[in-house]
Amino acid sequence: MIEAHIIEIEKKLGSNKVLLGDKVRERYSHIWETDKPLLAKAVIFPLSTQDVSDVLSICHKNQQPVVVHGGLTNLAGSTETNADEIVICMEKMNAIEEFDISSRTITVQSGVILESIHQEVEKKDLLFPINFGAEGSAQIGGVIATNAGGLRVFRYGMTRNLILGLEVVLADGTIISSLKKIIKDNSGYDLKHLFIGSEGTLGVITKAVLRLQQKPKSRSSAFVAMNDFNKVIAFLKFIDAGLAGILSGYELLWERNFKAMTAPATNIPKPLPYGYKYYVLIEGLGSNQEQDQQKLEELLEEALIDELILDAAVSQSVKHTELFWRIREDVDILVDQCNNVQNFDISLPISEIGTYVDSIFDILNKIPEVENFFAHGHVADGNIHFLISKTNNSQDLTDKINKIIYAPLTDLGGSVSAEHGIGSHKKTYLKFCRSNEEIQLMRSIKTTMDSRGILNRDKIINYHS
Amino acid sequence: MIEAHIIEIEKKLGSNKVLLGDKVRERYSHIWETDKPLLAKAVIFPLSTQDVSDVLSICHKNQQPVVVHGGLTNLAGSTETNADEIVICMEKMNAIEEFDISSRTITVQSGVILESIHQEVEKKDLLFPINFGAEGSAQIGGVIATNAGGLRVFRYGMTRNLILGLEVVLADGTIISSLKKIIKDNSGYDLKHLFIGSEGTLGVITKAVLRLQQKPKSRSSAFVAMNDFNKVIAFLKFIDAGLAGILSGYELLWERNFKAMTAPATNIPKPLPYGYKYYVLIEGLGSNQEQDQQKLEELLEEALIDELILDAAVSQSVKHTELFWRIREDVDILVDQCNNVQNFDISLPISEIGTYVDSIFDILNKIPEVENFFAHGHVADGNIHFLISKTNNSQDLTDKINKIIYAPLTDLGGSVSAEHGIGSHKKTYLKFCRSNEEIQLMRSIKTTMDSRGILNRDKIINYHS
Repeated sequence: MIEAHIIEIEKKLGSNKVLLGDKVRERYSHIWETDKPLLAKAVIFPLSTQDVSDVLSICHKNQQPVVVHGGLTNLAGSTETNADEIVICMEKMNAIEEFDISSRTITVQSGVILESIHQEVEKKDLLFPINFGAEGSAQIGGVIATNAGGLRVFRYGMTRNLILGLEVVLADGTIISSLKKIIKDNSGYDLKHLFIGSEGTLGVITKAVLRLQQKPKSRSSAFVAMNDFNKVIAFLKFIDAGLAGILSGYELLWERNFKAMTAPATNIPKPLPYGYKYYVLIEGLGSNQEQDQQKLEELLEEALIDELILDAAVSQSVKHTELFWRIREDVDILVDQCNNVQNFDISLPISEIGTYVDSIFDILNKIPEVENFFAHGHVADGNIHFLISKTNNSQDLTDKINKIIYAPLTDLGGSVSAEHGIGSHKKTYLKFCRSNEEIQLMRSIKTTMDSRGILNRDKIINYHS
Repeated sequence: MIEAHIIEIEKKLGSNKVLLGDKVRERYSHIWETDKPLLAKAVIFPLSTQDVSDVLSICHKNQQPVVVHGGLTNLAGSTETNADEIVICMEKMNAIEEFDISSRTITVQSGVILESIHQEVEKKDLLFPINFGAEGSAQIGGVIATNAGGLRVFRYGMTRNLILGLEVVLADGTIISSLKKIIKDNSGYDLKHLFIGSEGTLGVITKAVLRLQQKPKSRSSAFVAMNDFNKVIAFLKFIDAGLAGILSGYELLWERNFKAMTAPATNIPKPLPYGYKYYVLIEGLGSNQEQDQQKLEELLEEALIDELILDAAVSQSVKHTELFWRIREDVDILVDQCNNVQNFDISLPISEIGTYVDSIFDILNKIPEVENFFAHGHVADGNIHFLISKTNNSQDLTDKINKIIYAPLTDLGGSVSAEHGIGSHKKTYLKFCRSNEEIQLMRSIKTTMDSRGILNRDKIINYHS
């Protein structure tokens, strides 16, 4: 028996836009779990904002919970479903609607894949700076809904900073369309910030206007090493001032990561010898390869003399640079060395990172079920990732490690999620970084904007307290 | 007869924090109108967040409307009051609570004056980039509540981009405190963006954590001229790519401004001859005066050869640079040439600016009551200011000119306020850039967060539709 409101959706949109029954179970809710059949009453493929509005209007009337699917690369369980939900899949709303080179903006439907945006804008020497491993699958709607970060946040900001206009459908089908190309707009509440990073709980993003940057003409990279975390901070300030505006990456690896990534089996040569506590990969995106490279070398020379750093290796070629970045980015090498891996993406004030990570390493070393662990991160943004390898996947052990990582963040003023979001996986731990008053205000906003709680129900916070 | 709830506030806070009667009328609601006595039942001077919470809790219970006063420099009527309101004046909450050089953050109470923040952080070679004419009076709480812009938005963003943590008291006295120093935080809804730019209608900002930047070590400026607006856009892209990250200002003056600012009476020499249609002042904030200046000169040489620009003058000294910037910044020179001046701070896509301003000039030229007009702006941000001199100050003429400036913005995708906000002055025109659905959503948020409508009532939007 197909429910009446599902039939109503089929009639309204056309049956070619609706999957039911076995066709639903051929799909999945995460690209890492393509073998797990999707749980859902139906999957809807809107072709237009009006389609999304029609579906939500029917779902709202019938209190039908909805989960939106983009590229399904989310790491916090935001795209998980249950059998009572229906899925709105944005993949067919994948048109680039306008590329305005004068205004340096691109207007896209939310199902456009991030990598396609990169390819399009780079043809005209422009740059959309958000980049991360999953960019070949992630759709821009999900990138915006989760306020994605990535490798160039220090220079260009999170996704939030790069969105000029947004079109969103509210839970009851109301279309909020503000596809403006303007950088400055103080005409009332800046509503787009409500939807950016709200993980699909407040509205369904259908279109966006993205702000583009000039594509840099040079890329300089170097690895440096130090033993003292205070030097990691001091050198950041030194190199940021010295490279004046072009510093785009400042990525920290603890020695155990650096060693694992450059072990013989990886075929990645080590740019610096082992034996230092910290390795930092820096990147400058500038306008003149020769001048920028020379400036970087002069600054590193000065930093060596002043003992801000103990060692340095500057990339001498594009191939070099690619190998440098594999040491930071090719996280699969670490994942392959882990069993039952547990991931973290916390943030805390940069001044606290050294001591905090030392103490976490000490605790992890004493847990017999912990086989191995790694730490690296966008240290200039205060964002550290842990990967922890375990002998088993028991809930007790997972909870225990979550508490070890998250509990100190309350006093340190950190966050349980710098990038990936809360989704369903981190809900229990939200209270470690957000007060009761903040969570209560989130709940008020959620109930105001989605009075029947149909949008990504019980993600981030439970709909009923 | 003093009302019971005012007496309750006096008892709770102490009478030294409350002004009544004549003492109220000795105050004012705008620094340009110090001769106009303040209309209000009382003025409260909280010394702590708890004081603000106590006052609001009593006001909420008694449906007592409240207006928050900072430096009183707002240009949209946000600080106007009526005799039924009470004023919460933040000037005594003016402590810098913490200056964390490692994390490059400063934690301030909301009554701290913007200029004091500049002075404090510059001692340690750091920069809080928000700067504008009124920085000697404007308090940081107001800067945040209005999402102030200023002269370096292109490089560093609006105030919104520079706020890491915020403490706010809601209408009912609930304290929402999130004074974190972290750059990345995706743990649930980013509530601070609700308050930033909401002009005191959703909560009272009591403290903030500001993100600081390294103070640039060099400053290079140049004036260039062109006759074709397409060249204004093309040269922006050229110089932005060429200066890679250090371009911080790109300020456009139409010839009538340039002439007025460099007329003999002003004692400011003209850096370029008259006769061009557009004059652009560019600024780079870099790391090495000599290298940066040389690079700028090389780029200008190239732009002249390619006919992107028709003329150029590079500043050769600090004094030169100051004179260059007076041509853009010393708006008082223009104001002095105006009668019954009417001000605008609109924004629109950069590609539309040339045609739009031409057509506005044509219309203004045909209105007998318009004596003179000027236009200049942060053109890289799409933000244009008009100053219009009129023979009289009648409401009809004001409305007529408002409509001339604002009406085309709907189709062009612009905004009636890029910087100054809506306040009470622009409420009628909000609909030219925000849809009914957007305004309705603003109203829902307002009524959820301030159920009795006591905070800056009827600013931005009317509390009741």
